[in-house]
Amino acid sequence: MSTRPTLTGILESALYVSDLERSRRFYEDLFGFQVVASGDRLVALAVKPGQVLLLFRKKASAQLEHTAHDGDGQLHVAFAVPANALTAWEALLTERDIAILERRTWELGGQSLYFRDPDGHLLELATPGVWTNY
Amino acid sequence: MSTRPTLTGILESALYVSDLERSRRFYEDLFGFQVVASGDRLVALAVKPGQVLLLFRKKASAQLEHTAHDGDGQLHVAFAVPANALTAWEALLTERDIAILERRTWELGGQSLYFRDPDGHLLELATPGVWTNY
Repeated sequence: MSTRPTLTGILESALYVSDLERSRRFYEDLFGFQVVASGDRLVALAVKPGQVLLLFRKKASAQLEHTAHDGDGQLHVAFAVPANALTAWEALLTERDIAILERRTWELGGQSLYFRDPDGHLLELATPGVWTNY
Repeated sequence: MSTRPTLTGILESALYVSDLERSRRFYEDLFGFQVVASGDRLVALAVKPGQVLLLFRKKASAQLEHTAHDGDGQLHVAFAVPANALTAWEALLTERDIAILERRTWELGGQSLYFRDPDGHLLELATPGVWTNY
């Protein structure tokens, strides 16, 4: 095959939630993500330029003609934070009564905090050093 | 509340797959993502510095003590590509016999192609102009 065409990153990551309004509030209030689109079926949150977190109402996209999708279960998303911000994040989670489920220190020096969103999706805040060169 | 601590982006997005080896091959072969970790439970693929796509074997993470997670259904991930690369991506998908389910042109000028991975997860290749400032 010839040279592979360019791909610049993951633009959209998706979670499927049971109450869109509750989830929108959670992600807006905790992380400060800005709503860039919202409707009956989804809320799109800008995480940073070029990265959007999509919250889909469960079952609402299952009937799309060609592009049906839907998810169930407790999915996983990790957010990158600077090493010197982890203590402040931990304080903020505590202030919001969000239980920290686990703290992990990785072989490469990265540290992770795990907690859950209102649907039980497993969220992680991770400092550099979870993955090589990341 | 005081100033919100810094968050620099989505580090990990996750899909849950029925056959880890099949999915690893699909994402490696089609996109050229590099495997940065692999085991019985997951394969981690580097999409770009600071962005990892995690493929989890279905049900394999459901028994973790504090950080259980698992997903079902046909989830959604969108990858960003430059506008001038979309034709080449379309040709590559055709060459690989991957059916393009839908083409969409968005209000802001972005274009999307939709197709599926081996588990039926809904993948999208999107050029700039799907979201404002994205």
